[in-house]
Formats: sequence, C-alpha cells, structure tokens
Amino acid sequence: MLAAYSAEFTFQTQGKGTYEVTQKIGEIVRASKIQTGLATVFIQHTGASLIIFENADVTARADLEAFFQRLVPEGAAYFSHTLEGPDDMPSHIRTVLTRSSESIPVRRGELGLGTWQGIFVYEHRRTPHHRSVAVSVIGDCP
Amino acid sequence: MLAAYSAEFTFQTQGKGTYEVTQKIGEIVRASKIQTGLATVFIQHTGASLIIFENADVTARADLEAFFQRLVPEGAAYFSHTLEGPDDMPSHIRTVLTRSSESIPVRRGELGLGTWQGIFVYEHRRTPHHRSVAVSVIGDCP
Amino acid sequence: MLAAYSAEFTFQTQGKGTYEVTQKIGEIVRASKIQTGLATVFIQHTGASLIIFENADVTARADLEAFFQRLVPEGAAYFSHTLEGPDDMPSHIRTVLTRSSESIPVRRGELGLGTWQGIFVYEHRRTPHHRSVAVSVIGDCP
Repeated sequence: MLAAYSAEFTFQTQGKGTYEVTQKIGEIVRASKIQTGLATVFIQHTGASLIIFENADVTARADLEAFFQRLVPEGAAYFSHTLEGPDDMPSHIRTVLTRSSESIPVRRGELGLGTWQGIFVYEHRRTPHHRSVAVSVIGDCP
Repeated sequence: MLAAYSAEFTFQTQGKGTYEVTQKIGEIVRASKIQTGLATVFIQHTGASLIIFENADVTARADLEAFFQRLVPEGAAYFSHTLEGPDDMPSHIRTVLTRSSESIPVRRGELGLGTWQGIFVYEHRRTPHHRSVAVSVIGDCP
Repeated sequence: MLAAYSAEFTFQTQGKGTYEVTQKIGEIVRASKIQTGLATVFIQHTGASLIIFENADVTARADLEAFFQRLVPEGAAYFSHTLEGPDDMPSHIRTVLTRSSESIPVRRGELGLGTWQGIFVYEHRRTPHHRSVAVSVIGDCP
C-alpha cells in the first residue's frame, strides 16, 4: 500500500556555511513508516540551499566555503541586485549552483545514503536566518 | 488513495535568459487534484535548464545571466564541440551547472514554494527555441 | 494501482570522466512495469556524481571535463582537505556543482528523456572506483 507523508521543520542558521540535517531527515523518514520509496527534501528560500556532501572531515566543508567565496565574489562590479547588501546576489547565485531540493532513496525504512554522505543546509547569507525545510516521503507502507 | 499524474507543455524561448513558468506548473498541480505529494518538473533538452530563483526583482535575473556569461565564456580556445556555434558548448555546461529537473512539495493541492521562489526555464542558446517540459505529480488524491 | 520499485547496481569507473548509464536505467524502468510516474537515480558517493548531458557527440563530454579541470583546479593553495591526494577536494566540489540524484519522468513504461539527453555517472577521482547507484521508480502499474 503506497502512502505520501509530509513534514516541515525550521532551522536557525548562524551565517555562511553548511549545517548537517541528516539525522532530522532520518527521523522524519522513520516517522513516515515508509519502507521502500523516495524522500525529497526541499528548502523554501533563494538565499540558502541543500547539498549532499562529505560528512566525515569538517575541513572539506571549510574548503567548500572557501571555493564558493572565490567562485561567486561579493561586490562584483556588474551586480545591480544589491539592495540587501553584498552577500545578497551571491546568495542567489550560490543557490542556483547547488540545490533547492535533494532526493534520496528509502530502503528498509531508512535513508539510503552512502557511508560518507550527509545532507546539509547550505546558508549563503552572513546573518542568522530562519530556514524552512519541507520533506516529502512517498512509497510502500506495510 | 495515491495517484500519479503527468502533463507536458512546450515553451517558446527568445534567447538567453530566464522565463518564469511557476503559474503554468501550479495549474498542472491543481488539475492533478493531488493534495499532498511531490511535483517534479523536467526539461527535455541539453541546452536549456530549470532553476528555482528569486521571483521579485528582475535585476537578480539579469545579474545571474551576467555571472554565467563570465563563468562559461563563449569561444573558449579549448572547446572542440563548436559545430552549432559559440553558444553551443556553453549551453551544455550551463545546463550541467543548473538543473534538468526540479522537485517541489505539494501541500493542500498547491506548490509548496517559499514566498520569493519562482520556477524558471533557463534558456542558454542565443536563438529562439521550442522547449518541452514534462511535469509529474505523485501523491494523495481524495 | 501505484507501486514503488527499487533496484541497485554497481559501476566500475576508470578515472575522471563521464560514463553513460541510460540503457541500464531504462532496463530497470522496464523491469518495474510502471507505466506513468517518476524514476529517480541516486549515486551513493561524494566523489562521483550524476548528470544528464548531450549523448551524441563525445567531444562535448571532453570539453565538459576540460571546463571542470579549470573551474575546480587540483592543488589549490587554500585547500586543507588533501589527505587522499590533490583530486580529493576537487571531487567533492565537482559533486556539489553537479548532482547526487537525477529525476526523469516515466511515460508509457519508458524514460521520458529528450532526443539528445543521456544519463551519465560523472567520476571525479583519477583512479578506478566501484560506484553504487540506486534507482527508485514510483508510479502507475496496471
């Protein structure tokens, strides 16, 4: 018998960088009681995104942020969308270069992530923000 | 009772840039009568893509295009896939750096987008193109 | 009657570059017997990713790799996550800039890809790796 389950949570970020939410998503998948199917995580913002990333070594996450600071520099002379400050336009571009949603298979009632994969909210704004995340789980429920 | 609904539409682009299709996708979700589930939008091309982006300030969309023009310059000396012109290879790379599909939760029969999120076709070719978009909606239908 | 079908396969890569898996995914979709719905492909690694890309001209795939070599250079001075070699950190960044999952509509029991779209495993490590790929198909099954 197939079922569709949905849940939402909010998350408080503290400036640019990655925040792991794997455990929270796993709890939602278990609450859904769905055994085989798909979990889709969605972030309802244009200045923060989602990534699946190396979960073991925190230096990898620092290097990622250093890379994006260089790839999408604040204060580029050609930006005109600057009303909310120099991190505003880069935050939209960084969101486009990463993801608004991530989909993960559900197997035996658990997230089917690889050993080194974690799910992260990637905050692109300097100041703390409340971020809303929606999770949809669809699949077989005995 | 779960249901799977599908629809397709074509869209005429007029050169490089973003074209909002949020309203069209919303109509398809309402036509599906699905209340809780997931809507997945898919573009059937390798020279145009999909993004979820800031929907309020059109200058953000101009800045995005300016960024991609710099990130993936036309006529790079090392490109060999140039048969269809200087915008051909950049269009494939820009598609890879953005998305061929976007998934959005469905809640109470509507797209669960954040306040400032819109769904856009991102055209990467200079000349007008017909673009085919497929929408799949899966979820609970009373 | 809706159904959820899942399958996994492993894939042996031979260094950086793209490896087409469209046919394999198509076989899984046909085995699922699902006619209308959604197929989601997921790669369980942080050093290899998935892309939907031009499937006709192999030079496009070589140009893509040349672009990424330039965008995310090995041995950047500011990288500190270098334990596994100079291709380690770039492999994580290249994964974030592409995808861990791809979702494709299923129509009449087949993948609803456009004419020039193929599904590729994109390996970002220099040495051969075993890569695990999971496929979830959800939809109408007569």
